[in-house]
Amino acid sequence: MRLQVAAVCLIALSAYAVDAGHVLRGYTPEDSAKEINWEQKFRTMPDAARIKENMRRLSARPHHVGSPYDHDNAEWLLEQLKSYGLDAQIEQFSALFPTPKSRELELLGPEPFTAKLQEPPIAVDPTSDQTSEQLPTYNAYSRDGDVTAPLVYVNYGRPEDYEVLDRMGISVKGAIVIARYGESWRGIKPKVAAEHGAVGCILYSDPRDDGYFEGDSYPDGPMRPAEGAQRGSVMDMPVYPGDPQTPGVGAVPGVKLIPLDQVKTITKIPVLPISYADATPFLKALKGETVPEAWRGGLPFTYHVGPSTAKAHLAVSFNWDRKPLYDVIAKIPGAKYPDAWVIRGNHHDAWVNGAEDPLSGTSAELEEARVFGELLQQGWRPDRTIIYCFWDGEEPGLLGSTEWAEAHDAELREHAVAYFNSDTNDRGYFFAEGSHSLENFVNDVVKDITDPETGMSVWKRVRLVDIANATPQERAEIRSRPDLRIPALGSGSDYTVFIDHLGVASVDLGYGGEDEGGGQYHSAYDDFYYYTHFMDTTFGYERALAQTAGTMVMRMADADILPFQFSDLADTVHMYVGQLQKLADDKREEAKERDREIAEGVYKALYDPKKTLVPPPVEAIPPYLNFAPLEEASDDLTDAAKAFDAAYAAAGGVAPAGLNADLIRSERLLTDSHGLPNRPWFEHLLYAPGFYTGYGVKTIPGVREAIEQNEWTQADVQIGRVSVALEHEADLLKQATKLLPAAD
Amino acid sequence: MRLQVAAVCLIALSAYAVDAGHVLRGYTPEDSAKEINWEQKFRTMPDAARIKENMRRLSARPHHVGSPYDHDNAEWLLEQLKSYGLDAQIEQFSALFPTPKSRELELLGPEPFTAKLQEPPIAVDPTSDQTSEQLPTYNAYSRDGDVTAPLVYVNYGRPEDYEVLDRMGISVKGAIVIARYGESWRGIKPKVAAEHGAVGCILYSDPRDDGYFEGDSYPDGPMRPAEGAQRGSVMDMPVYPGDPQTPGVGAVPGVKLIPLDQVKTITKIPVLPISYADATPFLKALKGETVPEAWRGGLPFTYHVGPSTAKAHLAVSFNWDRKPLYDVIAKIPGAKYPDAWVIRGNHHDAWVNGAEDPLSGTSAELEEARVFGELLQQGWRPDRTIIYCFWDGEEPGLLGSTEWAEAHDAELREHAVAYFNSDTNDRGYFFAEGSHSLENFVNDVVKDITDPETGMSVWKRVRLVDIANATPQERAEIRSRPDLRIPALGSGSDYTVFIDHLGVASVDLGYGGEDEGGGQYHSAYDDFYYYTHFMDTTFGYERALAQTAGTMVMRMADADILPFQFSDLADTVHMYVGQLQKLADDKREEAKERDREIAEGVYKALYDPKKTLVPPPVEAIPPYLNFAPLEEASDDLTDAAKAFDAAYAAAGGVAPAGLNADLIRSERLLTDSHGLPNRPWFEHLLYAPGFYTGYGVKTIPGVREAIEQNEWTQADVQIGRVSVALEHEADLLKQATKLLPAAD
Repeated sequence: MRLQVAAVCLIALSAYAVDAGHVLRGYTPEDSAKEINWEQKFRTMPDAARIKENMRRLSARPHHVGSPYDHDNAEWLLEQLKSYGLDAQIEQFSALFPTPKSRELELLGPEPFTAKLQEPPIAVDPTSDQTSEQLPTYNAYSRDGDVTAPLVYVNYGRPEDYEVLDRMGISVKGAIVIARYGESWRGIKPKVAAEHGAVGCILYSDPRDDGYFEGDSYPDGPMRPAEGAQRGSVMDMPVYPGDPQTPGVGAVPGVKLIPLDQVKTITKIPVLPISYADATPFLKALKGETVPEAWRGGLPFTYHVGPSTAKAHLAVSFNWDRKPLYDVIAKIPGAKYPDAWVIRGNHHDAWVNGAEDPLSGTSAELEEARVFGELLQQGWRPDRTIIYCFWDGEEPGLLGSTEWAEAHDAELREHAVAYFNSDTNDRGYFFAEGSHSLENFVNDVVKDITDPETGMSVWKRVRLVDIANATPQERAEIRSRPDLRIPALGSGSDYTVFIDHLGVASVDLGYGGEDEGGGQYHSAYDDFYYYTHFMDTTFGYERALAQTAGTMVMRMADADILPFQFSDLADTVHMYVGQLQKLADDKREEAKERDREIAEGVYKALYDPKKTLVPPPVEAIPPYLNFAPLEEASDDLTDAAKAFDAAYAAAGGVAPAGLNADLIRSERLLTDSHGLPNRPWFEHLLYAPGFYTGYGVKTIPGVREAIEQNEWTQADVQIGRVSVALEHEADLLKQATKLLPAAD
Repeated sequence: MRLQVAAVCLIALSAYAVDAGHVLRGYTPEDSAKEINWEQKFRTMPDAARIKENMRRLSARPHHVGSPYDHDNAEWLLEQLKSYGLDAQIEQFSALFPTPKSRELELLGPEPFTAKLQEPPIAVDPTSDQTSEQLPTYNAYSRDGDVTAPLVYVNYGRPEDYEVLDRMGISVKGAIVIARYGESWRGIKPKVAAEHGAVGCILYSDPRDDGYFEGDSYPDGPMRPAEGAQRGSVMDMPVYPGDPQTPGVGAVPGVKLIPLDQVKTITKIPVLPISYADATPFLKALKGETVPEAWRGGLPFTYHVGPSTAKAHLAVSFNWDRKPLYDVIAKIPGAKYPDAWVIRGNHHDAWVNGAEDPLSGTSAELEEARVFGELLQQGWRPDRTIIYCFWDGEEPGLLGSTEWAEAHDAELREHAVAYFNSDTNDRGYFFAEGSHSLENFVNDVVKDITDPETGMSVWKRVRLVDIANATPQERAEIRSRPDLRIPALGSGSDYTVFIDHLGVASVDLGYGGEDEGGGQYHSAYDDFYYYTHFMDTTFGYERALAQTAGTMVMRMADADILPFQFSDLADTVHMYVGQLQKLADDKREEAKERDREIAEGVYKALYDPKKTLVPPPVEAIPPYLNFAPLEEASDDLTDAAKAFDAAYAAAGGVAPAGLNADLIRSERLLTDSHGLPNRPWFEHLLYAPGFYTGYGVKTIPGVREAIEQNEWTQADVQIGRVSVALEHEADLLKQATKLLPAAD
């Protein structure tokens, strides 16, 4: 609806436009016509073959933080960017990056077994034998430790899994937990295990989740083979990402470091990731009851909860070194607003060869930069400054992006218009997550991108695929809402510091969903052979990523009035407030129901002499919360957004002085410099990675997590803070509306 | 609510009762007191140790139809019943029962494999080595056949699985299908496969469904081991059960037989059941796409849909012999109403040793008969005639019960009051399925049975367990409805001929749900060792079954007014009518939605060059149906039932002449002698096994299956027939109400 109104107005105003066709939002008809021309030119130019060659070069050797080839790649990227005519440089930082000194995992007892902890070379895969350069399989920021204890299986190791264990009468106190990868971010698993008293944590890749259950195993297919293992960071990033020794500050030479023993983001217990070939003897050693159905993996035996009678011995130690980070940064100065920065980024470091993660994104991003170089030669100049970033050290903990952004904190808070991120990119359907003030912008851009396989716009395609997979209720919304919803950003890539710490409107985008994914995630087999045999083999979606991200950057950089839109934001905030109310109601109903069932004797009826069932404790009924301030504020935001969007549409792309500055501030107003409870680094009040989900987003996190954790006073306080921020946002929009000519 | 009203009235009337306590529904206070006294006596007497010894004796050797030990068991049962002082005899019938002459299954091609088709003896299990007496693993009533063809995997082989294959562009025409056991009755799998053009059918037991995925494998635990296989009948029983050569007629000597080549209930293609050890090479030979997630089993490789390039060779031939059936029948003549028969049954034949199926039921039933013998000696006499039946030939196709009931057709239609069936019985929660005119009766009886593990009544226990497992909506109903709902009867045991063919009110009952079940279903390992190690090891629920079934039989036999109740029936019919309306609406909405998606281009958006996706055909939108006659009739039934139940309560158990005869007729009026469309043997208009589900019930089957199969004219006709029957039922109740004194 909103979209159609806007379109009608723009068409009415476009009588004097260069052509009577489509006018881009935020552009005058003349500027729109010019922009469309340049954008169309841009989109013809990305070359799938070049992107493939970028990937081949960048993935030729292991290139993790601190490795020679990581530095070599950075220098090569710099050289390429310079060769495109761009003003590029390497900005160097440093960060704590532990690497394994020793790793040992044994099963003791009558059938002893020593885990191999090796991903063997595979004959057909030419880079898989670069073992001397590969990082061993390990979890970065695990503490050192040497523990011997019985094993307990904890499913995915989420807080709710421990509730199931409580009902089964199983404690992990003093035990080593064995958890499967998946469902929650890996760093949550040792964190929650330690909170429950475990002394060690083994993570393994179950074939149910990314192995033969999902599809053929590598090298016959893309899925994880028996000895494949997932490396990865277990840094407690929901507290803060980046260099653990310099939270909030850029890790430049001379910076003051927090002593290692005071770092909060290192795990409390030792952790080690293993393959399912290594995990099998440990899982088979578990005694006790058969686990609930949802806990069972794909291995060919019965999963028991434990504990094991045989003990496991886990010993890991690390070199706690600081390593250099090479961020490669290229700038295209803005012709009109050089102090307004549109930033684009993708990391270049990997766990090993990293063809899919991250080079499927990096290789496309580099091609975008090349095309911009060509357009510059053809005479195009962006209105705003464009900054292309190739981050180092994303894998261990978003190190390169975080240190860069922390080092440029004040400038970015002043100048940054928006940040566009990508990472892994595959074949399939467009996806985006991001700031909801950009939801309409993202929708608009991807209506202009052609899907390589179907020839329809990628917007139309994802909309139809969403319809195919939706519930009837969801379908009705998709069909009636002009813009497709974009999910909120959690964490897991380099947008985190921009959106969560600095309050820069951000979008993470890419393609995927057609090929079985994740099979070689953080494995030595995520390499050029793998990607070119099983993933986007034609590089059609690599090209589409370059077209999409490039168009976003260009359209944002050149707009007369920044194409922010707030009706979608207000609609989203309303949805979140409704979810919070439902969450509080559901928690209350659940507590009432649980207490009622205990009183009725349900747990007595469920008694089974062959099993253990511990009834849940009787729980205090959650109180009613006062949501009125949030309801009031989101209504005010809705009204202000509606008025602003109407005035914006009526302005015909003619920007009054001060309006763009207001728009740049709009995302900042959704932050609070005191941050979230217990994690002040996270300043955004609408979006954050969950304290107990890791990558998974919690929207309106202060309120939501307080409700989830039964902290009712905290919930009230947080409702107040968020309401104030939303009222400030509404005020900003009212002020901005006044700058515009009155709408009809 | 209804229950509470009734209870109040009865208490008011009970001032002159023997004690002021509980008065049984349908009893005068004096008779209630006497009955309660006898019932309490009855329930103290069943002896778990005797039941265990019954099982030990009956399961000592394989005892399938036609085997020496089957006959031996029948003679032993006869002897026991006589020794209890009962008037017992063997009634002998005969039936077609094919047994294997030869069975061959090979995988051809580069990696040839010959299936073993053997369940090997297991050292700790003393009867598992009786291989010379065991029936081989096979499916009875598979046709002879010798076919060589590629393989296609069809998941559970249900009609909806073939729709998925259609979308994947896979045809089974000319192929041998390999289907896993589970989700639908086995006989449906070759039937549907043949309808789709398959030339052969392999059934296998996937460890996901009854093997290591569910629990430890035999003999470490109860679940099916690698070489365990499920025998079973594939007779097309939804057309008619019993001897395939004598439908509708008792197979007594001299009966006219339908020639074999005209029998409709033999499969159209050869079928063979195998273990997962045997299935593995065939499944691994499948090429083509990875199957959808819901199709994947528990074996440690990727499941592909096929076809295979290697062909399979399946050859089976059978001895098409007629075998004797020995039904053991014991009667206790009724002192007051000898021509009113209360019938109790459980089969005694098995596929092999059959400790769980059926002897867990048979052994308890025999103990009931013993206890009745003792009570007779103590002076108790039932008002009505009680008939205890031990059926032969249930496993191949409900042969013994069907032939007996067909032979006694006219008598049963006149005299049978109710039939109480049991079969497999395990540890756990009470369950019952049956006629809804007996729903209230079943609820009342099981309030008086004490659960061996918790000491609460089994009614209370199952109610609380239902609450624990219910959705919030279901919970609200359980808490507010006086009676727990009992599901309707489908098929799969000996009640079928009684309820579906003769219209005798029936109940199937038992216990279960605590132990992992079904692991040795129809295997040679379903034996005494298995049952006494993994199932109801204390025989507490065997004793509870004897107490429950015995109390039902006794209370039904002795009642002054038969304890039928019709408000529950009317409520259930209303629920079914609502379901039918929703089914019709959902089908219409689904067709509209599918057609809309095709028009929108959803299937174009889902195009994936690496996969095959065949869009569904555009479908005609189902018309609206006239449900008014059914709504009218079910309202009339509700009114009539309410009036009757109130008058019944007010009568205080004093039976007017003719009332009990009316009540016996009440279930008959729900049948129609013309039967269901295309299967006239099935006469009940409210309940039938589904034509495409086999055991699974279809309620109001004429209408429901017509809607499911898009037969709209048929649906209209069937709505008319069912409405007439319901109006007749309402008229009967009105007439019966007039016999009773006017209620307040």
